[in-house]
Amino acid sequence: MSYKSDIEIAREANKKPIQEIGAKLGIPSDHLLPYGHDKAKVSQDYITSVQGNKNGKLVLVTAINPTPAGEGKTTTTVGLGDGLNRIGKKATVCIREASLGPNFGMKGGAAGGGYAQVVPMEDMNLHFTGDFHAITSAHSLLSAMIDNHIYWGNEEDIDVRRVVWRRVVDMNDRALRQINVSLGGVANGFPREGGFDITVASEVMAILCLSLNLKDLEKRLGDMIVAYRRDRTPVFCRDIKAQGAMTVLLKDAMQPNLVQTLENNPAFVHGGPFANIAHGCNSVIATTTALKVSDYVVTEAGFGADLGAEKFMNIKCRKAGLAPDCVVLVATVRAMKMNGGVAKADLGAENVDAVKAGCPNLGRHIENIKSFGVPVVVAINHFVTDTEAEVEAVKQYVASHGAEAVLSRHWELGSEGSEPLARKVVEVAEAGNANFAPLYADEMPLFQKMETIAKRIYRADAVLADKKIRDQLKAWEEQGYGHLPICMAKTQYSFTTDPSVRGAPTGHSVPVREVRLSAGAGFIVAVCGEIMTMPGLPSRPAAENIHLNDGGQIEGLF
Amino acid sequence: MSYKSDIEIAREANKKPIQEIGAKLGIPSDHLLPYGHDKAKVSQDYITSVQGNKNGKLVLVTAINPTPAGEGKTTTTVGLGDGLNRIGKKATVCIREASLGPNFGMKGGAAGGGYAQVVPMEDMNLHFTGDFHAITSAHSLLSAMIDNHIYWGNEEDIDVRRVVWRRVVDMNDRALRQINVSLGGVANGFPREGGFDITVASEVMAILCLSLNLKDLEKRLGDMIVAYRRDRTPVFCRDIKAQGAMTVLLKDAMQPNLVQTLENNPAFVHGGPFANIAHGCNSVIATTTALKVSDYVVTEAGFGADLGAEKFMNIKCRKAGLAPDCVVLVATVRAMKMNGGVAKADLGAENVDAVKAGCPNLGRHIENIKSFGVPVVVAINHFVTDTEAEVEAVKQYVASHGAEAVLSRHWELGSEGSEPLARKVVEVAEAGNANFAPLYADEMPLFQKMETIAKRIYRADAVLADKKIRDQLKAWEEQGYGHLPICMAKTQYSFTTDPSVRGAPTGHSVPVREVRLSAGAGFIVAVCGEIMTMPGLPSRPAAENIHLNDGGQIEGLF
Repeated sequence: MSYKSDIEIAREANKKPIQEIGAKLGIPSDHLLPYGHDKAKVSQDYITSVQGNKNGKLVLVTAINPTPAGEGKTTTTVGLGDGLNRIGKKATVCIREASLGPNFGMKGGAAGGGYAQVVPMEDMNLHFTGDFHAITSAHSLLSAMIDNHIYWGNEEDIDVRRVVWRRVVDMNDRALRQINVSLGGVANGFPREGGFDITVASEVMAILCLSLNLKDLEKRLGDMIVAYRRDRTPVFCRDIKAQGAMTVLLKDAMQPNLVQTLENNPAFVHGGPFANIAHGCNSVIATTTALKVSDYVVTEAGFGADLGAEKFMNIKCRKAGLAPDCVVLVATVRAMKMNGGVAKADLGAENVDAVKAGCPNLGRHIENIKSFGVPVVVAINHFVTDTEAEVEAVKQYVASHGAEAVLSRHWELGSEGSEPLARKVVEVAEAGNANFAPLYADEMPLFQKMETIAKRIYRADAVLADKKIRDQLKAWEEQGYGHLPICMAKTQYSFTTDPSVRGAPTGHSVPVREVRLSAGAGFIVAVCGEIMTMPGLPSRPAAENIHLNDGGQIEGLF
Repeated sequence: MSYKSDIEIAREANKKPIQEIGAKLGIPSDHLLPYGHDKAKVSQDYITSVQGNKNGKLVLVTAINPTPAGEGKTTTTVGLGDGLNRIGKKATVCIREASLGPNFGMKGGAAGGGYAQVVPMEDMNLHFTGDFHAITSAHSLLSAMIDNHIYWGNEEDIDVRRVVWRRVVDMNDRALRQINVSLGGVANGFPREGGFDITVASEVMAILCLSLNLKDLEKRLGDMIVAYRRDRTPVFCRDIKAQGAMTVLLKDAMQPNLVQTLENNPAFVHGGPFANIAHGCNSVIATTTALKVSDYVVTEAGFGADLGAEKFMNIKCRKAGLAPDCVVLVATVRAMKMNGGVAKADLGAENVDAVKAGCPNLGRHIENIKSFGVPVVVAINHFVTDTEAEVEAVKQYVASHGAEAVLSRHWELGSEGSEPLARKVVEVAEAGNANFAPLYADEMPLFQKMETIAKRIYRADAVLADKKIRDQLKAWEEQGYGHLPICMAKTQYSFTTDPSVRGAPTGHSVPVREVRLSAGAGFIVAVCGEIMTMPGLPSRPAAENIHLNDGGQIEGLF
């Protein structure tokens, strides 16, 4: 039996006009700002008008630690959304927008896969509705205004050696990682070191995704620290007077984007912050708006549950006052086998023992999610090579850990395949057993917050940090930043900081190499390992083969 | 009597849904890709479907050499479009898109003024439909791929000292004019000098505006020269294999944008290349599409007629096979007075002698335009301070030069005020006396082309260029670029290369400092004087005051 590729399925989609999709949520068409016939932004006026509505149920989809076998977190998110609609629940999917640059390096990421996809796929992997371009513009405006401030007399006495605001571009361009700017003489300013990150790493992106409204956005932008003076005091974005114009540039980008699944169900695709130096979730405004117009909102978080779900709970939910009713933890038989020591080439063969040996990684995540007070359902994202015995092994393991695993065949069958998962999620969510609480209180000292995450989620024995880092944390506490949550930046492949350690390790330590303050976004980043904020292109970039065919269709992007 | 500001008038606009505007041109709504309710792109399929239609009449609006008094070229373009519609002609306005970056330096440029504006004005000064962002992305992809090529072995043997492809950003950022890239060690590539221009200066912008269709676009992108090898042979974009992916990034940007005037008449706003190092006109595809669906197309060219109209005729019309039926030359009484030696502060007082003294600049442009075989109508763009005697002086001068001047009051009265101008333009265009020919043949040697423009348009005695430049032109001729037209980059304030010389000078010489080959766009740039391709921000950028007010309206941008 042969299967169609994602792009083949996406191109056969029977898309409905976006106004019809909006109508399913009760959004009148004059409150949908169309971008073509299949994308729209929801107007700010409409968002304001529904604030009195009751919230629907919030379901987070997360996963085990990723392996090269693939887990299908987005695919399951989309499949669950369709499954919930199938059984009569008005459900909306909320996922992140894709970054443009990386698509030209490796083949682009689809939004889901198989018969559980969001469309239009091409647009979502290209300019979409321009949100990321708006973020790049707003970021670039501040960059220009900082050097312009220095050029015209430097009233704020910025130390040019301590400009912490880097530039951004939405492209994988390693040549820009470290540069010298303002060369060429007096007319071009004061030479200094600088560099570019990719747009998704911008603090503006994180802020857009955490802001409750445009006023909040403007305040947070103003709160960003862009440099330090020669007396070491911080220079804020508001000192440069850029936050108002940046907000103007971002006003449309703040409105959530409505698209549809292959089954014509609504999906908000909005925002896409890095999942290491930022929190890795779609925008708060998309999630909160979806909750006001839906019975169920199905959303996802970046990487595995140790990073993604932890940040979703401790950063996004804390800041936006959200409380998940159920968590769906995605696992695959193949990933269990890899965790159990099977090489990627051998995943096709049945190996129940390896499945069993790999299950403890899953078990650890189940325990962790429960520790937030939220019930968990395990979704076994079905691959056609999975055997019945292997699936059964996972189910038994999960049952022994006080949860239930449901086989879900949305990739192959769409909502017909995810209906059992949807029914289980409704059962769990409507039982009302969720009692969500973040892992730590705002008042806890910053270093202790890091220890709490490391010990309770990663099961490490200790957090290692030298005096300089501890002193920095103390200084921030004295400056009034002690209430902020921690954003851990570590490898997604392991509970430890060593990407090669699979399973459910204990007894390790978590070395914090560096800490960064994102004063506008409102978190402190603990960098544990190498973090790349500007990717490069491979030796044969995908871009070399991307082109329009004679029929005007895009080739090579997927 | 007090007058409303442009933005006040624009905000009071009674906009119609963009589908209704398209319907005026016979464009079905499913061939309009909406961006919000008041902007749309015309589908490529529709453009293809109307290729068999007869062309409407083409009217170019140009102006005398600009003075600080302001001429109102765009305002007259819009006013004439409305005037033509008023008298029963199906007329479409075609103008350029605005660049984002400069709006944050000085107050943003409106699209027209008074009661002759195109709306939505805010969007047009911000992201609009994302075309410029797409150009920035396509340009940035090639930039990244060039350094990536060098990084991964440099198969093409690019000389890192001779990478001529600069990066771009749509922001005024002087710190990026000259930079060193790929610093920081082996993982970041081979250090070299580089720099950024503003997006409108990108050759990609010029190409988008000159391409006939997507195939042509891809070919031209591939033809761009990005670097030279150590053996001095050119490295093309196609050697880097970027042109296909760049075309994919530009496929939506190639579709013209439809908006409306305050009087709900159609306007295509599409493309915006620099008017010095490029040709400064809206896209060929917008103009040619408009001609297929309109009785009249009113378009404009950058700067004064010596640069803008000359390039429109010798570059855009030549390459796209267009032939204007009439040229409208915009002048103002105030500008005549400034050309006649009156200071800006004294423009309010009647001064008929100064008007007469300033008229020779106008006369020179009339002669020049006639030399292209196209009839000319002078539009006196009325200011409320103009006296009857002053207006009469201009009219008499123009009549003595074999043309007719019409007073036009569109700024104050909309189409009611421009109706006389519209009637005159129809009379002239429908007389069928136009017999357009470019100023020089493709076969003429490159240096002689420069001399032809300098002598016949600027009335200079000679073009000065050192041996290095003449040798470069010869080399390009040998390489097969001898058929290209010349794109003059000189000051817009004078017929000479000295911006302070007003009026109608003769006997000067035109020194060519540098020549550049835009092999994809298809012209050779002759740089005569200082050309700034990356502006800076002023000491108090407009951005400092731009913000959203409590009603969600943009303040400070206009």
